[in-house]
Amino acid sequence: MRAAYVPAVDAMWEVRELRRPEPGPGEVLIQVRASGICYTDIWSTTGVIPVGVPGVVGHETVGEVVAVGDGVHSRVVGDRVATTWILQTCGRCEYCRRNKPVSGVAGLSCAAPKTSGFSVQGGHAEYLAAPEAATVLLPEGLSFELAAPVACAGYTTWSALCAGNPRPHERVAVVGIGGLGHMAVQYAKAAGFETIALTHSPDKHALALKLGADEVVSDGRELAAIGGADIILMTGNSNRAAMDSLHGLRPEGRMVLIGLPHDTDFVIPGPETGINFVVNRNQIIGATHSGFEYLTQALDFVATGKVTPMIETYPLARATDAYERVASGAVRFRAVITY
Amino acid sequence: MRAAYVPAVDAMWEVRELRRPEPGPGEVLIQVRASGICYTDIWSTTGVIPVGVPGVVGHETVGEVVAVGDGVHSRVVGDRVATTWILQTCGRCEYCRRNKPVSGVAGLSCAAPKTSGFSVQGGHAEYLAAPEAATVLLPEGLSFELAAPVACAGYTTWSALCAGNPRPHERVAVVGIGGLGHMAVQYAKAAGFETIALTHSPDKHALALKLGADEVVSDGRELAAIGGADIILMTGNSNRAAMDSLHGLRPEGRMVLIGLPHDTDFVIPGPETGINFVVNRNQIIGATHSGFEYLTQALDFVATGKVTPMIETYPLARATDAYERVASGAVRFRAVITY
Amino acid sequence: MRAAYVPAVDAMWEVRELRRPEPGPGEVLIQVRASGICYTDIWSTTGVIPVGVPGVVGHETVGEVVAVGDGVHSRVVGDRVATTWILQTCGRCEYCRRNKPVSGVAGLSCAAPKTSGFSVQGGHAEYLAAPEAATVLLPEGLSFELAAPVACAGYTTWSALCAGNPRPHERVAVVGIGGLGHMAVQYAKAAGFETIALTHSPDKHALALKLGADEVVSDGRELAAIGGADIILMTGNSNRAAMDSLHGLRPEGRMVLIGLPHDTDFVIPGPETGINFVVNRNQIIGATHSGFEYLTQALDFVATGKVTPMIETYPLARATDAYERVASGAVRFRAVITY
Amino acid sequence: MRAAYVPAVDAMWEVRELRRPEPGPGEVLIQVRASGICYTDIWSTTGVIPVGVPGVVGHETVGEVVAVGDGVHSRVVGDRVATTWILQTCGRCEYCRRNKPVSGVAGLSCAAPKTSGFSVQGGHAEYLAAPEAATVLLPEGLSFELAAPVACAGYTTWSALCAGNPRPHERVAVVGIGGLGHMAVQYAKAAGFETIALTHSPDKHALALKLGADEVVSDGRELAAIGGADIILMTGNSNRAAMDSLHGLRPEGRMVLIGLPHDTDFVIPGPETGINFVVNRNQIIGATHSGFEYLTQALDFVATGKVTPMIETYPLARATDAYERVASGAVRFRAVITY
Repeated sequence: MRAAYVPAVDAMWEVRELRRPEPGPGEVLIQVRASGICYTDIWSTTGVIPVGVPGVVGHETVGEVVAVGDGVHSRVVGDRVATTWILQTCGRCEYCRRNKPVSGVAGLSCAAPKTSGFSVQGGHAEYLAAPEAATVLLPEGLSFELAAPVACAGYTTWSALCAGNPRPHERVAVVGIGGLGHMAVQYAKAAGFETIALTHSPDKHALALKLGADEVVSDGRELAAIGGADIILMTGNSNRAAMDSLHGLRPEGRMVLIGLPHDTDFVIPGPETGINFVVNRNQIIGATHSGFEYLTQALDFVATGKVTPMIETYPLARATDAYERVASGAVRFRAVITY
Repeated sequence: MRAAYVPAVDAMWEVRELRRPEPGPGEVLIQVRASGICYTDIWSTTGVIPVGVPGVVGHETVGEVVAVGDGVHSRVVGDRVATTWILQTCGRCEYCRRNKPVSGVAGLSCAAPKTSGFSVQGGHAEYLAAPEAATVLLPEGLSFELAAPVACAGYTTWSALCAGNPRPHERVAVVGIGGLGHMAVQYAKAAGFETIALTHSPDKHALALKLGADEVVSDGRELAAIGGADIILMTGNSNRAAMDSLHGLRPEGRMVLIGLPHDTDFVIPGPETGINFVVNRNQIIGATHSGFEYLTQALDFVATGKVTPMIETYPLARATDAYERVASGAVRFRAVITY
Repeated sequence: MRAAYVPAVDAMWEVRELRRPEPGPGEVLIQVRASGICYTDIWSTTGVIPVGVPGVVGHETVGEVVAVGDGVHSRVVGDRVATTWILQTCGRCEYCRRNKPVSGVAGLSCAAPKTSGFSVQGGHAEYLAAPEAATVLLPEGLSFELAAPVACAGYTTWSALCAGNPRPHERVAVVGIGGLGHMAVQYAKAAGFETIALTHSPDKHALALKLGADEVVSDGRELAAIGGADIILMTGNSNRAAMDSLHGLRPEGRMVLIGLPHDTDFVIPGPETGINFVVNRNQIIGATHSGFEYLTQALDFVATGKVTPMIETYPLARATDAYERVASGAVRFRAVITY
Repeated sequence: MRAAYVPAVDAMWEVRELRRPEPGPGEVLIQVRASGICYTDIWSTTGVIPVGVPGVVGHETVGEVVAVGDGVHSRVVGDRVATTWILQTCGRCEYCRRNKPVSGVAGLSCAAPKTSGFSVQGGHAEYLAAPEAATVLLPEGLSFELAAPVACAGYTTWSALCAGNPRPHERVAVVGIGGLGHMAVQYAKAAGFETIALTHSPDKHALALKLGADEVVSDGRELAAIGGADIILMTGNSNRAAMDSLHGLRPEGRMVLIGLPHDTDFVIPGPETGINFVVNRNQIIGATHSGFEYLTQALDFVATGKVTPMIETYPLARATDAYERVASGAVRFRAVITY
């Protein structure tokens, strides 16, 4: 099979012929139809994340089941499926022994998980073998191209919104309108929340409104001026912007962090800043994938047309171009390799 | 291997030689060391539950892993494990497609689950093959005999208490002090709640206090007289008793039902009864197993000595006696077969 | 002042001159601008509710503050306010001593509350004195006529929806499309939920769609056939219809009851009905007013045009007509008296 | 009446004769029987908090109602009551208009609250006038001396524990064993949680165990070594210690902050520290008073002997000594002025 292979840290991706995997017991063989490029693919390639290279990275993988291994009971040839970052947990570490639900979320805290594109072969390849339990069935009518970026970007974004425990009639602000943020605005709106986009880029104001934002503001003080938000979803790559946005967090409001960028430390502001984190009972919530029900919901919103990832597609032969464009920031939203 | 076999509906259990199962892909072979008898075993035997017979019933099974099938990654020979009612979900039905967490709880709503002692061989046998994902590791130092009844009775009881969403400083009342109730009182107390036992049997008053109840009352009006409860856990076999206990449910209080007995319909009382279900924002909550983290917690309480199931043990050779004593009501709490 | 006075149980309402109330310490005097008729007004009039008559009933009252009593600190002359059922709690009963939040919700469980139109003069009058703490400020731009039915019908409906703890992406079904139901459909849709109306009246199908329902079905089996609902809001006057709708309740789904009608007992169905209440971890939740934040939110949805109560208005001089039309069922949605 | 008066910022407290307050409409006059000294009293005195001086500070006030103002309906002469920090909210600011529950918690975010010892006379005086709604009834049998420190320290601590949303079987770690921490350990234990004290002071190890801690550790790595905690309650005066303790926070674990000390910024640790805040779905929760139901519960634990504040008492004549000892750190736990 052909795959986008990363031969060494900091080396260019190469499309290469590799041996096609066989599905082991409990596994399905997926003929990959689309695989999204996540920024962590770049980090593996450049060594920021010290696993996955040399090898095939990728964990936004969708395709069709073309073979099943021994003992597979829940998937059949012909199933259209998505698979994501965590393929399997160890089942024996201290965390696994507590037996929190294992589909997705707990895997992230497992001491020895099997992870797509990190500990084993990833998704930028014509075929991928994955445990049946690591797959979800795609909704009918959803294209592979649009499904791919949901397997990580959409899943993460929707999980993060839900991790904020938004209640009906609450207001959601999204900080950053990029690869995650452009989906976050759509998800928040699709779920019925009054949605405010917060971006420093004037050229993204019109886009944010088109994506469904009720209002667009530039910073936390502007957010405060229009009444603040109950939930702030931090999707961008700047802790500075996130901390600034706290000026617009309402009492009992929650900021959800999908990551901790490196531009500066994330300092919880003291009252001298005018932000009364403690007295206002605010919360800061870390969030990543939160279980396959959230992936299923995230896919459903795309299948019903309420959310549409903004993607650029590249055939596998052009995977290297795709990589370079993502790495250089030329891809504004999401890049997807097609097969 | 020897097993307690039920040859036909309403026939007596027989200890019989059966072929020892082989672990399939993803399965472990458990040498059973103890298996608890649940009242549903009697219902399968008598045909009230129309599955499992002819065959081997039982779903409170604990033992040691003595072989592993292909592809098993999370269990090794020598592991001490428990397994319970739901062994596997279909992964394809409408419910499974929503991908709610699958360990235990979702299985109950799956349209085609694999179930121990119902759809496949159950636990009253020297050996049982089960999917690795359907097992939990036993805490160190916990005896097999005490672990067995936790796999259903303890798991159900603790899940039900937690399903009531008890908050710190709340008061829990347990209706019925039998197989489930005697554990419910202990679990509620072990978790720090002021605990009230509600029983019509005067001879159980002293027992309830010994189990840790702070107070014992006879009915809902007595419960009301001592200030009521925020949670009422219905463990007995009488809807009449459960409905009566609602007199003692506080505003915002929740009744948790583990089952719906047949003595009478469970009618939500109207205000003419003096119970203001709607105005008091009361809730009635159905509960069964709620995921393996609850089973793990339930086992931990027993391992640390905070909860002790009251059991009678029978060697496999006396399984028929055990069955008869459970069926006739002679076993007051839980019966466990040992191997 | 003039008021709609009920001289005796089962007597006709009379528009009569009464002495204008004075605001006591901590009270405001409201010049009533609109007062909605709730069906409980009819029950007081006919003696089903044995309080309030002889007297002035009514608890959907909105108007303008025209005087303030001693010690009032939060309201000023000119404020546009709503006031509702519970005016004040006793602060000393067993429930009040637990000090659950007092604005609205706790009052319902207080042993000796002051209640508008029941224990003291109600809202169908040109003036009403009410504790400042029993009022909420109306949003700007909201007409008195549309605000009035929110003070009980809208408040109840929105509270009930929220009491079901709906989570993003869940599906809400509303049983009954009358005075409460026509608002429930709109609130559920305004809050972003896929909304299904369930009505036996074919002539209400088109209306339900116009109100925003995504689909309309006739009963619980039809609801099941289109995938079921996570929340069923029971707004109608038939327990039979409510119980039937449970066929369409999803696992983990919750039915919210605003009342318990008298057509039949509300029996929690046993598994023999095909409804697996316990195994599916279903819940039945009693709900009424849930605190003034919910009233505020309910008013806000109307102020922003996302929800519009369907009303018939009557000048005070025609209050008797209004009463008769409500009592006879001629008013399909809500009747409001204007001043 | 006599009172502890602070004549100017940084001046010594003086016991002085002041005019006895009169209860206004809706107010009660409390004959103070005990008033606790909170460290914020020191901050007001030294100007760190720029309100309350010149004047009488204090907001941990308990006593007996000796007169009631016009319109008071929920308190009578002879009532034993506690009153706390927030006496009244404005009812008109942006926050108040959202109408979140007003007893205690919302007041903290009100733009113009009436606050005991800050905006109006505080509790270190023989008499205090307070709105009836700002008082809670004391449980029978609870001494005034032990009740006083609950009105702020106990209330805050218990609220914070509950703000962490602890679930049954979870583990609570308390950082710091001082004025708040010595109560936090007792509250966590009284509520049934396995409780771990985290203190750098070796001399507090034995005390922590005596207070009920199951284990005592010195820092976050030791906490991790014994299995970590689901909730970390930060009660001390060091962000450095709080941040270090995060090493012992379990996946899905929550740290609750009662304040933000000044020793260093509170930085949310990045993954390079070994703390995976985002991937482990951790939370940081700001908490203060959370409503009078929590104050009532906090008092109840003391009344039933499950929690005992460690206090030093001083007659009013020695208030200046008490102040000096608290300000200098000589009072290890709580100081209470008696009358």
